[in-house]
Order: sequence, then structure tokens, then C-alpha cells
Amino acid sequence: MGEEVRKNKQVVLNDYVSGFPKESDMKFIEGTIELKVPEGSDQILLKNLYLSCDPYMRILMSKPTTSTFGSYVPGSVSLAFQMQPLTGYGVAKVLESGHSDYEKGDLVWGFSKWEEYSLVSSNQILFKIKHADVPLSYYTGILGMPGMTAYAGFYEIGTPKKGDRVFVSAASGAVGQLVGQFAKLAGCYVVGSAGSKEKVDLLKNKLGFDEAFNYKEETDLDAALKRYFPEGIDIYFENVGGKTLDAVLPNMRLHGRIPVCGMVSQYNLGQPEGVTNLAQLIFKRVRMHGFNVGDHYHLYPKFLELVLPLIKEGKIVYVEDIAEGLENAPAALVGLYSGRNVGKQVVVVARE
Amino acid sequence: MGEEVRKNKQVVLNDYVSGFPKESDMKFIEGTIELKVPEGSDQILLKNLYLSCDPYMRILMSKPTTSTFGSYVPGSVSLAFQMQPLTGYGVAKVLESGHSDYEKGDLVWGFSKWEEYSLVSSNQILFKIKHADVPLSYYTGILGMPGMTAYAGFYEIGTPKKGDRVFVSAASGAVGQLVGQFAKLAGCYVVGSAGSKEKVDLLKNKLGFDEAFNYKEETDLDAALKRYFPEGIDIYFENVGGKTLDAVLPNMRLHGRIPVCGMVSQYNLGQPEGVTNLAQLIFKRVRMHGFNVGDHYHLYPKFLELVLPLIKEGKIVYVEDIAEGLENAPAALVGLYSGRNVGKQVVVVARE
Ligand SMILES: NC(=O)c1ccc[n+]([C@@H]2O[C@H](COP(=O)([O-])OP(=O)(O)OC[C@H]3O[C@@H](n4cnc5c(N)ncnc54)[C@H](OP(=O)(O)O)[C@@H]3O)[C@@H](O)[C@H]2O)c1
Ligand SMILES: NC(=O)c1ccc[n+]([C@@H]2O[C@H](COP(=O)([O-])OP(=O)(O)OC[C@H]3O[C@@H](n4cnc5c(N)ncnc54)[C@H](OP(=O)(O)O)[C@@H]3O)[C@@H](O)[C@H]2O)c1
Repeated sequence: MGEEVRKNKQVVLNDYVSGFPKESDMKFIEGTIELKVPEGSDQILLKNLYLSCDPYMRILMSKPTTSTFGSYVPGSVSLAFQMQPLTGYGVAKVLESGHSDYEKGDLVWGFSKWEEYSLVSSNQILFKIKHADVPLSYYTGILGMPGMTAYAGFYEIGTPKKGDRVFVSAASGAVGQLVGQFAKLAGCYVVGSAGSKEKVDLLKNKLGFDEAFNYKEETDLDAALKRYFPEGIDIYFENVGGKTLDAVLPNMRLHGRIPVCGMVSQYNLGQPEGVTNLAQLIFKRVRMHGFNVGDHYHLYPKFLELVLPLIKEGKIVYVEDIAEGLENAPAALVGLYSGRNVGKQVVVVARE
Repeated sequence: MGEEVRKNKQVVLNDYVSGFPKESDMKFIEGTIELKVPEGSDQILLKNLYLSCDPYMRILMSKPTTSTFGSYVPGSVSLAFQMQPLTGYGVAKVLESGHSDYEKGDLVWGFSKWEEYSLVSSNQILFKIKHADVPLSYYTGILGMPGMTAYAGFYEIGTPKKGDRVFVSAASGAVGQLVGQFAKLAGCYVVGSAGSKEKVDLLKNKLGFDEAFNYKEETDLDAALKRYFPEGIDIYFENVGGKTLDAVLPNMRLHGRIPVCGMVSQYNLGQPEGVTNLAQLIFKRVRMHGFNVGDHYHLYPKFLELVLPLIKEGKIVYVEDIAEGLENAPAALVGLYSGRNVGKQVVVVARE
């Protein structure tokens, strides 16, 4: 059988990034790939369909230190003929499999790379898609990593009770919009913050939040929180960190919980903002708990059982922001850090 | 029966305090008290024996705000003839009781006031002392509130496992010295930080810590922590906050726990130090949990069952710093914030 060498468009990082990432920090290049799993390998050959833009990707763009968790290999430090595309979550179709768990034609979601075709290791996170009667792109969002993040963070780490008062930051995003809807399903009162009027309207009118506000228009975050939570906050689902967290702390209720999901407002800062109100954790006996979705994937079947019917019955909705074409992926990714995305940011590489 | 009006020496606060408290922020005055429980009242009349100096008392000296949990009534805002002494934990003898749970001659520990004789409410925290074959002063420390704090904070909030690597700040203090000893009993490796050579020696040679260091002599706290915890920290028992917490965060291990007991380094600051490394909570999936000993007093009988035999067998030791006389109480209290105390700071009002 002849080896088929194909052109393979890729997105690579030029160099380590400091400060806010720019589109020009990435390059759209044309590599090549042999469309074949090497003899004897258990790798899987994927055709990428949808790629997911996720805030944590910025952390991997920084020069690695002992206190971070890895980094991309930018072009500047790789040899030119070995340029590495970014890695990330995506939805893909199996073209060939060296591993018995997968076969040609399977649809999967999990770790892939920012390119058209990818050869990936079979011990990466890779789930077979068994329900294709929903938009496939959902497996980058509500039915994929961000969905599981909202589920594990809210239910497992947040331990909600009926009547709890819940605050969600970055509320209209991939994770936040689901946290709000889970909170309503759990009988909670939920308020979200987001960065534009459009997003605030979405939260109130489409996503079922009880209240929402534009944090960019609040000169006094503490006063805003007191307005929506006169009796305080039981669960703060933390997506942004920094000033928002500092304003939340004195507004927490006794025995409140803070699932620490992310701190997107801090990822681009050389020196993160200082949080000054941590003594409130003692006064209010608050539990602040960082988590990683990766520790919770064993719950994925249980999660699907809950969420698939809710989607089909229209009891949960999901807002996506779709960028067409791999060439638009750098702009889409960079847009996360200025809030350009409205809902889950997806990049379409191919539709099938 | 004639009413007996007695002189009653008291320590009162002059005015709300900002910054570090000074001895002169308090006044030693002579009040009077009628040594009698008012007819029909369920109050209890106490003769105070030992008073406890506790770091949280500084918080009650500040002008109250919505984000603190109360304050003393300083002389400046009370009418002169109603000057209120400080309140605090202590050991006392019951002189008369309006409540059936207590009777004349009982020894008790719990909430009392900084004066010779006190009339206290029966629904305050007040435990009857059933074991008087240990130093009575221990009920301000190892067998009282700080002991229960170490116990609940370490076992309940810290959830230790054998082999865990434990770091304790303010390690030679009332709470810290016990946390270290509990950690050794639980099969952990434990390192303490304290503010003088004398305290460091105490930690290593008397209190059984594996290692200890003087944080005032470390120009790079991160480097010091890496020296003692090359593989990171599983449990950080947080007593001081601020810079120490910020240095600890990047040194936490996966799934580490931070029982947040206190932040004594912050209580005197108008603007607390900013903690910048909180994103580590996510990277390392750390649980940071503020607690208040008051929520755990139901465990007191279980606690005594554990600790009393250990004391009697010499398997736990306890270091006290005893100030003689109520007139020396202000200096003793103020000394906590410069680390003048070596071990639990007690004030003797009367020995019986
Ligand atoms: N722990 C985990 O396992 C895990 C997994 C997935 C995601 N996460 C975290 O969850 C958070 C949300 O992720 P997502 O995928 O749902 O992203 P997203 O919300 O869809 O996109 C990021 C959003 O963050 C907001 N934002 C950006 N800069 C900000 C700033 N300086 N201050 C406040 N808001 C800012 C923007 O919305 P506005 O217009 O509202 O500002 C932007 O749209 C992130 O922190 C992410 O790292 C954690
Ligand atoms: N959550 C609760 O229910 C609860 C109950 C009891 C106590 N606590 C807290 O537990 C902590 C320890 O209390 P404790 O009774 O055991 O007090 P302690 O340690 O006996 O006395 C306070 C000690 O703190 C240290 N310190 C003072 N200022 C400092 C600073 N700027 N930086 C670092 N260390 C400083 C000093 O020791 P060095 O010489 O080592 O600096 C001082 O001896 C406090 O934060 C207290 O508020 C909480």
C-alpha cells in the first residue's frame, strides 16, 4: 500500500508569550503528514473537525517555570522542520487506529492538535462519541470538557443545596452558562457577571439566570454584589480571580464554598493581582477548592445521562461562537482574553 | 442576706485600635461588682483564675465594619460608669450559679472577662472542668480553645494521611505546637516556622518537629520551603497569612490541603498584604478551608479522651508563657503580635 503524504495546515506558536497574546504570536503554516499509523504503533490518526479555544491555553504559551504545569513548544525553540502545532481539545474522526478501542469512522472528542490531521497517542484523553444526534460541536463544549468542568465544579466541589445563592463570573462563557443552568435546576438563586450588555441580556433572557450584571460598568464591585446578594453568597463559582475574587470574599455567607475553576483575568499578567480579603475564609468558614476537570472524567457517563435528555427536551440550552476555518483559530483564541467570544468559542476545521 | 459589693480590677480598651496595639491602648481600672447573681437570673458568677491571650482579640479592637465579626466596646464609646472589660477565654471558679448545670465550687473554662470577678451568661461557651489533675492553666491552652483548634483544624479540616508532609506557621504558639505533635502522632513529616532561634530550638528539641526554621532570617521564603519540602507540602496549617501563604502556594503538592486557622500577620494592617499565587489552587487542586473552633466543640469529649492520656504519659508536651497578675495582661496580649510569647500566653489572675 503506498504511503499517502498530504499537506497539513497547522497553527504553531512563534515564541513564548508574555502579556496578552496577539494573533501574530501564532503562525498559520503548511506542514505535511503521512496519512498512516506507523507500523506496530498504537497511535490514532485523526481528521480534526472542531477545535476548542480554551483559556488555559494561554498558560501553556508562557515560558515554563517550576510553578506552572507545562508549555507549548514554540517555533523559536523547535527545529524548523519539527514545528509543533498547538495542542488542545477537539472533535475528530478516526481515519485509522493502531489501538483496538477505536476504529476507522469513529467520532471522538479529546486531546488533539491545531492542524487538519493529527496522529495522537492512544493514552491521551479520548472519548468515543456515541450520541451524534446533537450538534457535533457540542463535544467541544456542553458535552465535552467545559460541560464536565461545570458539572464537577458545581455539583462535586460546590455541593449545592436548594435555595443556595450562587454567583458565577465569566457567566456567559463555555463553563459559566452551564453552571448557571445547573444552579437553576438545583433550585438555587443565581447571578452572573459578564463583560457586555449583549452577554448580560443573554444571561437573563436566554440562559435563565435570575440576575446578571456587566462587571465592566460597575465602579464598585462590592456594592454590586451587595445589591444582588444582600444576604451574601453561598457558592461563588470562580472563573476569573483577581479583583472579582477579592470583592466576593467579604460577601460570602457562613460555610460558603468557592469552587476555583479558573482565573482568566490573571493569565496574562506578569505579576498577578494581590487578593487581600482571604481572612474572610476564617470569619465565614469558607471552603475554597481548586479542581481540575481531568480528575472527574470517571463521571462522564453519569453526566451524559443527566445532560443529554435535558438538551433534547430543551431544558438546557447552549450558546456557541463559531469561527470558520483553521486560519481563523488564532484570532478566535486570542479573543477569549478580551471577551470577544459570546458563548463557547469553537473553530470549524472541517464539517465531516 | 446582705449584698457584698467588692472592688473588681478590670482591663478595658480606651478606644478602637488601628495598626499594632500598644499596652497604652488598654487601661487597668478598678470597678466594683456585687458578688451575687441577680434574683431570677440564670447567670453565673465567676472568680477568674487564668485568662487566655489570643490573637483574634486584636480583630475585636478594630472599629467594627460589615466584614468583621464584632468588636469590643471601648471606653470612648461607653458611658464612664459602664466601662466594659475585654472579653476572652479563661479558667474560673463558680462562686454562685443561677443555672442548674453549674454549682458553687465548679471549675470551668470558656468565655469570661478581663477582670477579677465576672457575671457571665449561661449560654456562653462554658465547659465544666472534670479533670483537675493537670495544670489548671492548660484549660486556656492544650485542653481548651487552642487545643480544640489544633485538633479540629488538623484532623477534621486537614484530613492527614500517614506520610503527609506538613508545614505549620507560628509553630511554637498555643495552636502550632500541638499541630506539630499531632502531625508526628499521625505519622507525618512536619516542619515549623517561628520567629526566633529560641523557638526554633524548642520546636526541634522539645516539641518533636522534624525541622524548623526562623522565618525572620530567611530572605527567600520560597527557597526555605523548597529546602525542607523538595517534594512539596501536603498540608499547610495556616496561622499567619500574607507573605508566608503566598510562598507556600507554589510549593503545595497535588490535592494538598490548607486548613486556614488564622492570619496573625495581617490583623494589624490597615490594608492586608495581597496574595498573588492563588491560581496554584487550581494547578494543584488544593483545598483551602477556613474554620472556626466554635463549630467543633461537640468533639470536645472525644478530644479529651485522646489528649488527656497523652499528656499524662508524657507523649504530648505543652509550653506555656505565664504572666503574673491582671495588671500585666495588656503587655502580655500586645506581645503576641511581636512574638514575645514563647508558647501559650496565659495571665494568672488568681491561683484559686
Ligand atoms: N479547572 C478546570 O479544569 C477548568 C476547565 C475548563 C475551564 N476552566 C476555567 O474556567 C474559566 C472559564 O473558561 P471557559 O472555557 O468557560 O471560557 P469562556 O468563559 O468561554 O471565555 C473566557 C471569558 O473570560 C472572560 N474574561 C476574559 N478576560 C477577563 C478579565 N480580565 N476579567 C473578567 N473576565 C474576563 C471573557 O468574558 P467577559 O466578556 O464576560 O469578560 C471571556 O469571554 C477559565 O478561567 C478557565 O481557565 C477550568
Ligand atoms: N480559627 C480558629 O478558630 C482559631 C482559634 C484559635 C487561634 N486561631 C488562630 O491561630 C493562630 C495562632 O494562634 P495562637 O493562639 O497559637 O497564637 P500564638 O502562636 O501563641 O501567638 C501568636 C504568634 O504569632 C506569631 N506572629 C505574630 N506576628 C507575626 C507575623 N507578622 N508574622 C508571622 N508570625 C507572627 C508570633 O510568633 P513568632 O515568634 O513565631 O512570630 C506569636 O508568638 C492565630 O492566627 C489565631 O488567630 C484561630
